[in-house]
Amino acid sequence: MEPTRWLSDGEQEVWQRMLAVLTLLPAELDGQLQRDADLTHFGYGVLALLSETPGRSRRMSELAALVNGSQSRLSHLVGRLERQGWVRRERADDDGRGSVAVLTDAGYAHLAASAPAHVALVRSLVFDALTPTQVAQLGEITAALLARLSPTGGCPAPASRRGSASDGS
Amino acid sequence: MEPTRWLSDGEQEVWQRMLAVLTLLPAELDGQLQRDADLTHFGYGVLALLSETPGRSRRMSELAALVNGSQSRLSHLVGRLERQGWVRRERADDDGRGSVAVLTDAGYAHLAASAPAHVALVRSLVFDALTPTQVAQLGEITAALLARLSPTGGCPAPASRRGSASDGS
Repeated sequence: MEPTRWLSDGEQEVWQRMLAVLTLLPAELDGQLQRDADLTHFGYGVLALLSETPGRSRRMSELAALVNGSQSRLSHLVGRLERQGWVRRERADDDGRGSVAVLTDAGYAHLAASAPAHVALVRSLVFDALTPTQVAQLGEITAALLARLSPTGGCPAPASRRGSASDGS
Repeated sequence: MEPTRWLSDGEQEVWQRMLAVLTLLPAELDGQLQRDADLTHFGYGVLALLSETPGRSRRMSELAALVNGSQSRLSHLVGRLERQGWVRRERADDDGRGSVAVLTDAGYAHLAASAPAHVALVRSLVFDALTPTQVAQLGEITAALLARLSPTGGCPAPASRRGSASDGS
């Protein structure tokens, strides 16, 4: 086994901040949506995704991949959204296997009513906090992280490897 | 109410990536620690924090603030760590109110044994994915976000406000 490359003090500081963001930002988004719209942030994401799809419907398996959730987590959530009247499940037309989640008219109306306050919070917590340059940097950084976080577990191609001492700082 | 400032297409793209990171990164960290060390990432953070404190102990209330968790979430976690033999709770010495979490010798040994694999994963998923410049940018970006995410809910000072069209990009 290779010797552990411990984090430097500077890396440690960045990592502690990143961990705090990973904890506090989702909690803040969930809190607002639960108070104002009886939705988790995960639930809001599912409704928003369905609203943008032609026919306002998606196979459950596709939906799980798109919102980066497991099938069981999504299934639990969609059951709840169904009881709230915002989504209904139908059998998939084409092969009779699997099921499809459909956004109801009530679900669309609820999403439309919830969106302004949610977007205002995202803008206030994230986009208003950053300069346009930082927003662009965050786009590059998150793309680089996602290349290693793909739900398929794929390794990044060699060309996307970075972080060698030679490429700047 | 002000008209909604919807996200631009570019902002929307950055936000979708950020949301994917917020979902996938904690899941990956939790998965490794649960498989290899029977710890959640939150539990690992608590053991690590105690290990760095003189006397390897902290008041529960301080600990909750330091790991950005609610008192009830921390209390639940520490109960579990106590059953695992890695932490014990004691009454606070000074005023007899509240309680203190203490890292046990077994907890310290477990943390020391778990750290190399965890740090290797953090390095591989985060620091090896970014250039040194991007690590520095991530440090600035997370600091700016945390100024608005403080658990005390404090507003950032006017001097830290950014995001006007005039400051770059």
